Amino acid sequence: MRIAGKPYRTLWPLESGAVRVIDQSRLPFEFSTLDLTTLEDAAHAIKTMVVRGAPLIGATAAYGLALALRTDASDRRIEEAAGILRATRPTAVNLAWALARVRSVIAPLPPAQRFAAAFREAGEICDADVEQCRSIGVHGLEIIRQLAKSTARRVNILTHCNAGWLACVDWGTALAPIYMAHDAGIPLHVWVDETRPRNQGASLTAYELGAHGVPHTVIVDNLGGLLMQRGEVDCAIVGSDRTTACGDVCNKVGTYLKALAANDNGVPFYVALPVSTIDWSLERGSDIEIEERSAKEVTDVVGRTTEGKVASVRVLPEDSAALNLAFDVTPARLVTGIITERGVCPASREGLLGLYPERRERA
Amino acid sequence: MRIAGKPYRTLWPLESGAVRVIDQSRLPFEFSTLDLTTLEDAAHAIKTMVVRGAPLIGATAAYGLALALRTDASDRRIEEAAGILRATRPTAVNLAWALARVRSVIAPLPPAQRFAAAFREAGEICDADVEQCRSIGVHGLEIIRQLAKSTARRVNILTHCNAGWLACVDWGTALAPIYMAHDAGIPLHVWVDETRPRNQGASLTAYELGAHGVPHTVIVDNLGGLLMQRGEVDCAIVGSDRTTACGDVCNKVGTYLKALAANDNGVPFYVALPVSTIDWSLERGSDIEIEERSAKEVTDVVGRTTEGKVASVRVLPEDSAALNLAFDVTPARLVTGIITERGVCPASREGLLGLYPERRERA
Repeated sequence: MRIAGKPYRTLWPLESGAVRVIDQSRLPFEFSTLDLTTLEDAAHAIKTMVVRGAPLIGATAAYGLALALRTDASDRRIEEAAGILRATRPTAVNLAWALARVRSVIAPLPPAQRFAAAFREAGEICDADVEQCRSIGVHGLEIIRQLAKSTARRVNILTHCNAGWLACVDWGTALAPIYMAHDAGIPLHVWVDETRPRNQGASLTAYELGAHGVPHTVIVDNLGGLLMQRGEVDCAIVGSDRTTACGDVCNKVGTYLKALAANDNGVPFYVALPVSTIDWSLERGSDIEIEERSAKEVTDVVGRTTEGKVASVRVLPEDSAALNLAFDVTPARLVTGIITERGVCPASREGLLGLYPERRERA
Repeated sequence: MRIAGKPYRTLWPLESGAVRVIDQSRLPFEFSTLDLTTLEDAAHAIKTMVVRGAPLIGATAAYGLALALRTDASDRRIEEAAGILRATRPTAVNLAWALARVRSVIAPLPPAQRFAAAFREAGEICDADVEQCRSIGVHGLEIIRQLAKSTARRVNILTHCNAGWLACVDWGTALAPIYMAHDAGIPLHVWVDETRPRNQGASLTAYELGAHGVPHTVIVDNLGGLLMQRGEVDCAIVGSDRTTACGDVCNKVGTYLKALAANDNGVPFYVALPVSTIDWSLERGSDIEIEERSAKEVTDVVGRTTEGKVASVRVLPEDSAALNLAFDVTPARLVTGIITERGVCPASREGLLGLYPERRERA
């Protein structure tokens, strides 16, 4: 997507053999890039959230493994590098997946060919992610096109958290259809949930939409219900961290409340996701274990002071405790449709198997 | 209610003829009081939100009018003082109501008796507010008592925004039943919605519950749905800014989303309110005009820095806009019951008329 008119990915290889990434830890207040030239650079970038978002973490780890092999591509070095990268964000599924993919390609090769092959494979992981997100965009675009036909004003779309290109390599998942519709000239406007406690909506989603030129307004997470009551939301599109075989959606906490409001007001509620988030082994969303994160994310808010310094302020009394559960589960009955790289389907076992018939035989 | 074991009201008269108030603009970070000795002191305290909450604003204005008459109690001075006080928070209904009540008492009196009569009437306004809130607490207590009987663990109650004693003179509305149950020895715990954008839950509700010793945990507004899905909320109790004759409830934005989640999970959802918030002239909540406030409340968050300074940080990109609508409407169908100073009733025209039969003849 574009920043101030210039097309970007979240990371890209340089001719020097290094990898350049957008430093997301400084967004939305400052746009800067960082060059990763060593394994340590890549591990540090993931750990300190210079890069974040499951697909982007995977892509960065793949490049990190390649960078580790530049001077020593022995089996032992591969093992060591993979261990270091895996430890950066131990719960990120894409990270382990990307490392395994690169390793399976380079393991059979003689050490002298491994660096180049790993670097090439990391690039292919990136390209595949971009293509997958682009396909989600193409299918979601049709939904927005239909909504545009039935309204005289611009299409108002609500989104929660950041399922945009900053979390991926390009396009994003929930935001891919929005970028595609915007680029196609369909007049639209995005209601961006600020997404407490980490404010990924207020910071990252608002930033990337603004940088690409997509009209948007940030709202507190409390406001979406009223806007739907007033007919000011034409559809909601969110991402998913994990989707069950029956179409229950585990996504950033608060998604469920928006789905309830959408349902209560007849607003279509879509979830955009790549096949990799579907957990075919899981039936019910209520079986998903919900990650509990540091209470500090609730008690303290990070922003920019009037002097331009990035600082954190505590909003709670010193003696009050906070609980921080990061996700909730939206039952399939509240989901109008699931948008994947293969098309749009009902949020149900039959719906998902319709798009992924190869899974039917295995069931 | 108590702060560190000592009973307080939000304001109280001193023997010197001044009025002492808790300076709420410094909460939750510092407890301090302020003495109001002149009309100007009272007007300034209301304007700068040293005191806030509709009932407390009314009580402070009543005392402010009394203070204005200490040296000059002419008709002209009354007129002037009422004008100054009314201008401090022009939309506060209780403010105008309290001023009219004091004026109606002192107008027939000779000027020499007016100061003492106004001061006495302000005190009666306070006492009446305390008694009204206490009665809400008594009726709500029975609901909590029943919930306690049906669970082996402590009763978990969710609340939104601040409808506590800090908004009133004592007890509060939504929190009155909670204080009463806590004082009665019923084991309970309160989930406190932080209540973006102004964070009244994270700051004021958490503060007053903590100061009185009521166990509580602050959560982001996004989390209540998941907690209800998990059976970790036994009931919700919120306040109301305006209630229609049919039981639709206009309250702090986000209340509707919690009511939807409560409904979806079979969690009882109560609204506690004094009769003064019922607008008998209004049928449908959707006819209520919703106040739009400054976007700055969304874009900037106030808290305490690590150095102990109260500061404001911006969380949005510089170029992103925000929308700040302060209330939403929870339809009566989602409300389990309304708790007033007269008892508990269904959220319906018949329910409310059952508690206020004198309104039936007028209809």
